[in-house]
Amino acid sequence: MPERQAKTWSLDEAMLDALEIGAGILGIGGGSSPYLGKLRARQVLREGGEMTILSLAELTDDARVVPIGGVGAPVVSFERTKEGREGLRCVRAMEDRLGIRVDAIACQEIGGANAMEPLIVASMAGIPVVDCDGMGRAFPEMQMTTYSIYGHRSTPSAMCDPHGNVVIFDHAISEKWHERMVRACVVAQGGSSVLACAPMAGAFVRQHAIPHSYSRAIALGNTVLEAVRSHADPVAAICSREGGIIIFRGKISDLKRHLGGGFVTGEATLAGFDDFDGGTASVLIQNENLVFSRDGEVEVVVPDLIVILDIDTGQAINTEMLRYGQRVAVLALPSHPLLRTAEALDVVGPAGFGFTDLTWRPMRTSS
Amino acid sequence: MPERQAKTWSLDEAMLDALEIGAGILGIGGGSSPYLGKLRARQVLREGGEMTILSLAELTDDARVVPIGGVGAPVVSFERTKEGREGLRCVRAMEDRLGIRVDAIACQEIGGANAMEPLIVASMAGIPVVDCDGMGRAFPEMQMTTYSIYGHRSTPSAMCDPHGNVVIFDHAISEKWHERMVRACVVAQGGSSVLACAPMAGAFVRQHAIPHSYSRAIALGNTVLEAVRSHADPVAAICSREGGIIIFRGKISDLKRHLGGGFVTGEATLAGFDDFDGGTASVLIQNENLVFSRDGEVEVVVPDLIVILDIDTGQAINTEMLRYGQRVAVLALPSHPLLRTAEALDVVGPAGFGFTDLTWRPMRTSS
Repeated sequence: MPERQAKTWSLDEAMLDALEIGAGILGIGGGSSPYLGKLRARQVLREGGEMTILSLAELTDDARVVPIGGVGAPVVSFERTKEGREGLRCVRAMEDRLGIRVDAIACQEIGGANAMEPLIVASMAGIPVVDCDGMGRAFPEMQMTTYSIYGHRSTPSAMCDPHGNVVIFDHAISEKWHERMVRACVVAQGGSSVLACAPMAGAFVRQHAIPHSYSRAIALGNTVLEAVRSHADPVAAICSREGGIIIFRGKISDLKRHLGGGFVTGEATLAGFDDFDGGTASVLIQNENLVFSRDGEVEVVVPDLIVILDIDTGQAINTEMLRYGQRVAVLALPSHPLLRTAEALDVVGPAGFGFTDLTWRPMRTSS
Repeated sequence: MPERQAKTWSLDEAMLDALEIGAGILGIGGGSSPYLGKLRARQVLREGGEMTILSLAELTDDARVVPIGGVGAPVVSFERTKEGREGLRCVRAMEDRLGIRVDAIACQEIGGANAMEPLIVASMAGIPVVDCDGMGRAFPEMQMTTYSIYGHRSTPSAMCDPHGNVVIFDHAISEKWHERMVRACVVAQGGSSVLACAPMAGAFVRQHAIPHSYSRAIALGNTVLEAVRSHADPVAAICSREGGIIIFRGKISDLKRHLGGGFVTGEATLAGFDDFDGGTASVLIQNENLVFSRDGEVEVVVPDLIVILDIDTGQAINTEMLRYGQRVAVLALPSHPLLRTAEALDVVGPAGFGFTDLTWRPMRTSS
């Protein structure tokens, strides 16, 4: 397993299976399911495509690295498959707009389906994906990457839909305006497009990207697979690997969800099992799980990771897949230090999601 | 008065006043009021700007002519003034995208505020406006220009908002898809932006543009001013000039309007004056007046022009300015032959607006 490896390495089908599980957990309920993306990535491999992961150590200072991700509401991408070459068209549109060649792809968001899209695009373009991402998890909006937080301007960006339409957001006065225009346009395009943002220099990526995202997600997936294979507890294995804790076990007793403006918002209420403290809990959702409260008291707050898992299989449950009566474990995993600085918390802390009465405190890391 | 003049000529303030009236009439209830645009255009003149109208006869075959227009819901532009240089930024973005210099500006829509925007942009860019437009009136959507109808592809187009955001619609698979993406994006930008479409060759413009639009609109405005000055009937003067007829005189007895998706839709019901046949009539609206019916029978259908005027002053009344009890005259003016071909009627005839049970017949031209 090439975890945190200093060298360039290639992905195989088994790694894609592990990545599906790891990216699913890091999707934090959102980020869309990686399953369909995995099938497309596997197809690319089976047709002879190479998927190369470039370590941060090997990334040159002046390499042109383009962040790639799908945009739209996760629920749309479950029912509307991609045409397949949207991302490649984005890269070509960017190259044409700027008169450059792109050297490598960066992942915008390792959580959910966006872990797969960069692999597919890079393989088609014959270039590597850097072992990093901009979130270390999933977030609902694009200004919420460490790239944007630490000063990268996403424009000009190029967005392509399954039909063949190409839109270039040539200049946005802020990262939030970029997000706003992209969001409106993706709804007009049918709700599931791919976006390439302006190239970053390799030196910037090494300093400001969340490192080792692919190796971490694959290792996390392998941890779950190994635990299931050896009849161990996958939930405990995830916690041990990621330095997280199990904060709740129970079943879903109420569920509110609303799809609007390209987002799913809502709240899940949970009734605790008596043999694990009992009580009630709630998880507030905007595409991803954002705030965990127990008996009305806030305990874990974004950007720390709130993961809802099937209690028996350790598989992550997407927001869209939550159902009344499901038996779940809720984990809290600490967010990456790059998400915990003051400038990051302005964007991805509770205030960035409109929870102006909440203050982020680091989650407790032992129970 | 330079009507249908074969030479290049310059606009002065008096011509802007006449253009405001003429463009208001040709706005057919929509196209937004030219008033604020006139004030901005006048300011440009007062600051020493030149406004040059280039006759079609003088347009060279290979001139690069960029269509310019404001986009958004008319009602927004009443309350939200332009920053001022949106259109110039559009031209510069287009030049930068294509690596060309733009030689002249074409008007997308002579009806309403979009008569003024090209003058302002061209003056700032130091280039002329061609004496033509793409509609000969106002229409609610962008694929409804003779440019698009007769084969021009609007992409790449550039859209700029008052804030400084620049979006390039690099490729749309159809003119309708272009309209759809632009419409979604302009709502995100606040509802009032300026768009420049891909350059047309001068030869194409001479063949497919509605000719003499500026000279016609200015002459029409002067006709109204002259009638008012000489205590003649302005409504009769308009009809006589444009080959139109007065189809109804009455007052507005009911009014339904709905703003949604960037459009105003609705219906005005009119009660006829007894000394002019009486009866009742209705006008269906989508930004512009589209269908006129008398006592339930359809009489005038888009693309022919249905103009609602103040019965005393001859001033056009915008859809947004219609009020219960207003005393109005309704005129019908014949549309330009370029709007009456089979390919044009597919787009700007009743079917293009969803009236699938209506067939366009040329309006009667004498009462």
